[in-house]
Amino acid sequence: MTAMLNPADSGFLSALEARLPKGTLREVTPSYLEEPRGRYRGQAAAVARPGSVAEVSTILAAAHAARVPVIPYGGGTGLVGGQIAEAGPMPLLLSLERMNRVRDVDGPGNSIVVEAGMILADVQAAAERVDRLFPLSLASEGSCRIGGNLAANAGGINVIRYGNTRDLCLGLEAVFADGTVMHGLKRLRKDNTGYDLRHLLIGSEGTLGVITAASLRLFPRPTETATAMIAMRDVEAALSLLDRTRDAVGEAISAFELIHRQGLDFLTEKMPDVPQPLALEGEWIVLTELGGRGVSAALEKVLEAAFEAGEVTDAVIAQNAAQAQTLWDVRETIPEANRLVGGISSHDISLPVSDIPRFIGEAQAALTAFDPDLRINCFGHLGDGNLHYNVYPPKGRAKQEYDNAYDRIKTIVHDLTHAYDGSVSAEHGIGRLKTGDLETYGDPGKLMAMRAIKSALDPHGILNPGVILR
Amino acid sequence: MTAMLNPADSGFLSALEARLPKGTLREVTPSYLEEPRGRYRGQAAAVARPGSVAEVSTILAAAHAARVPVIPYGGGTGLVGGQIAEAGPMPLLLSLERMNRVRDVDGPGNSIVVEAGMILADVQAAAERVDRLFPLSLASEGSCRIGGNLAANAGGINVIRYGNTRDLCLGLEAVFADGTVMHGLKRLRKDNTGYDLRHLLIGSEGTLGVITAASLRLFPRPTETATAMIAMRDVEAALSLLDRTRDAVGEAISAFELIHRQGLDFLTEKMPDVPQPLALEGEWIVLTELGGRGVSAALEKVLEAAFEAGEVTDAVIAQNAAQAQTLWDVRETIPEANRLVGGISSHDISLPVSDIPRFIGEAQAALTAFDPDLRINCFGHLGDGNLHYNVYPPKGRAKQEYDNAYDRIKTIVHDLTHAYDGSVSAEHGIGRLKTGDLETYGDPGKLMAMRAIKSALDPHGILNPGVILR
Repeated sequence: MTAMLNPADSGFLSALEARLPKGTLREVTPSYLEEPRGRYRGQAAAVARPGSVAEVSTILAAAHAARVPVIPYGGGTGLVGGQIAEAGPMPLLLSLERMNRVRDVDGPGNSIVVEAGMILADVQAAAERVDRLFPLSLASEGSCRIGGNLAANAGGINVIRYGNTRDLCLGLEAVFADGTVMHGLKRLRKDNTGYDLRHLLIGSEGTLGVITAASLRLFPRPTETATAMIAMRDVEAALSLLDRTRDAVGEAISAFELIHRQGLDFLTEKMPDVPQPLALEGEWIVLTELGGRGVSAALEKVLEAAFEAGEVTDAVIAQNAAQAQTLWDVRETIPEANRLVGGISSHDISLPVSDIPRFIGEAQAALTAFDPDLRINCFGHLGDGNLHYNVYPPKGRAKQEYDNAYDRIKTIVHDLTHAYDGSVSAEHGIGRLKTGDLETYGDPGKLMAMRAIKSALDPHGILNPGVILR
Repeated sequence: MTAMLNPADSGFLSALEARLPKGTLREVTPSYLEEPRGRYRGQAAAVARPGSVAEVSTILAAAHAARVPVIPYGGGTGLVGGQIAEAGPMPLLLSLERMNRVRDVDGPGNSIVVEAGMILADVQAAAERVDRLFPLSLASEGSCRIGGNLAANAGGINVIRYGNTRDLCLGLEAVFADGTVMHGLKRLRKDNTGYDLRHLLIGSEGTLGVITAASLRLFPRPTETATAMIAMRDVEAALSLLDRTRDAVGEAISAFELIHRQGLDFLTEKMPDVPQPLALEGEWIVLTELGGRGVSAALEKVLEAAFEAGEVTDAVIAQNAAQAQTLWDVRETIPEANRLVGGISSHDISLPVSDIPRFIGEAQAALTAFDPDLRINCFGHLGDGNLHYNVYPPKGRAKQEYDNAYDRIKTIVHDLTHAYDGSVSAEHGIGRLKTGDLETYGDPGKLMAMRAIKSALDPHGILNPGVILR
């Protein structure tokens, strides 16, 4: 569809400028054209920073009429290049950063209505001010924006209990490619009035419409929290601990993270100031957090039983919030240490939870057969079956030396994931990085229907061209 | 789009019959053409009873080529006429009843894969056999089929804790209008690989595709359950009790139902054999069920505090499972008693939970102004903001005498619901009954996009014509 598009040239931009408040269109500064992993470098004719849904509608209607590509832009933290157009006719960036207000918050009703440009941490803080929890939490929460979280259906550490971003959304306001506005900021728990376009837009990565605001679910803040970092015998033991914990506290497991010692070694190497409270003899750690009445006592009992069964070799239970934060700092700085080491290939995959030990063994065997010196840092959200399976060069070697191995390594990991009926994009999305993987591993029937829907809602293909569907 | 369709004539049927196993096509028996409320009487040329997804594909491909309307059929329990075509070119019924197997069940992995024709109660039983809970529960669970529950995004009594049907579904196998099969029976908790067609098909009431199988979430069975029927001072007190309970047990509230004494009076009148354990002086009852460690003690404390605050006037706490069932029997036979009384107009609405007391007051005032003798039975899922707001003729009068009042009563209730930013279809769907309401109250931008998607996925409009979009 790209062939039909026109660049955002000066004629288009000046006509659009005349229809918007002064200052809405600006020159693009470099930060809009970079992304965290440094894989892509973008281009754009200008950045539009609308202040209202009406202005978003004006911008899209103009782009639709002129067939100019538009790249919706949130916090710029996406890991699959969804916010970066490297090629094609020069696009217009559409940043939601100025639409960053809380429109309404209802503590007793457990809901909040926010604009798409709000920083995720600000949404969390607004919920806390009415003694509620907005549970979406991920490493980039200080800079990512809720519109981007919705567009990508972000996951993070609390999915096991509260679900993905889509599960936290009650309603959306959005603008379709031709400028048509959908007013759907309902705050209802049940609403069966036609097709669920909310869920269609969530996870569509800006290719079907631009989300401008959302009504979100809030939750009671757990009255008691228990956090522990636990050294495990092996991955099977970690799964057993998950079962034991679930048997004991049901849905009160807020997080259940798996960490490999390679991640701790990277931390020691690149970020030695981050304290590591647990001395580790074996390979695997679990970091778990429970929330609800009686969870501390329950966790102690669970750990005792797992210790007696030989599944747990050591554990640190946080005695207060500061200690809990120290444990979480380990988990949350691993991605930064990973970046400093420099990976050859990072994989955001998910698997049926019970298959994870076998998968880890087989993936390691396959990669070792390919090159016994590769280093693997496998960590992630065990409770969701979501692994960040990242492959690094041997110590002392640079990732650039392994550029030629990237495709082969990726194929080894993704083929095995697919064989286990897993997903090659668990929580990061497809973006521009994984369009080929989607074609390789996606269901042809689903792809056919996706293309039909894309053509129906964005007939000229102006919205984020090249993302999800090439 | 109906104008383009052709009847399922003998030429079409015999050509199709030749491509299917003997006996797949049958004459239509009367039960397929009736629905629970007796509002519609259907027509069909034949019923197809495929045994596999391949046969469903064959049927739809033939109907698509011949432009013959197809009515997908589950358990026939829908309340909005979604399974009944009264007019238009003679359709083919497509019943999933023979596709009723469990394909896979994984207790430790908390998932089950079932075919669309399974009776809901059989899915619940299959989960119980592996010591797990499939929480979808509604009055018709003994005859409705899971494919219909998915197509309608059914709600029921456990939504407050476990969500609607869509929240219980991990993946779908479905067939699009042209016979293309989507293989999507993933069992993953996180999967961001393209548009979420699962959620688009769920709730589309057989107009975008035919669901043939689903992978569903299972849950641990609560180790301890507490059930109570509680006489409330008023509706505000019921909401206060909900808050108190949530503060005490968090997400462990499995059900929180509101019952009006009118429902009990109907029970006394029409089904006197159903025991009513609670003597009621006021107007409102709450029936609640909690599940999880320590919930019995927590419930007693909550009731004590609410009693002292004057919010609760009396309560019955079930001492065992049989007593709990007696309490639930009251709630679950009210719809049958309602049918025996015969309502003028039934409304399945939802509202922001905190607005419910005001809504109930205003709706009653508006209806009383219209006709002071009308009887109102308002009951439902208070925790979800979902009311079944049903209006009955005065005692001794027949609903037929009020046929002329139907439109006016419906408009009073729906206008007020809309003014509160509520939904005129909370859990029953649009079907053929509420297409006008959707046009009246639906967002124009959403309707535009819905029509575009319908045309894209079912260009000849063969799938359940007249449902959702006229």
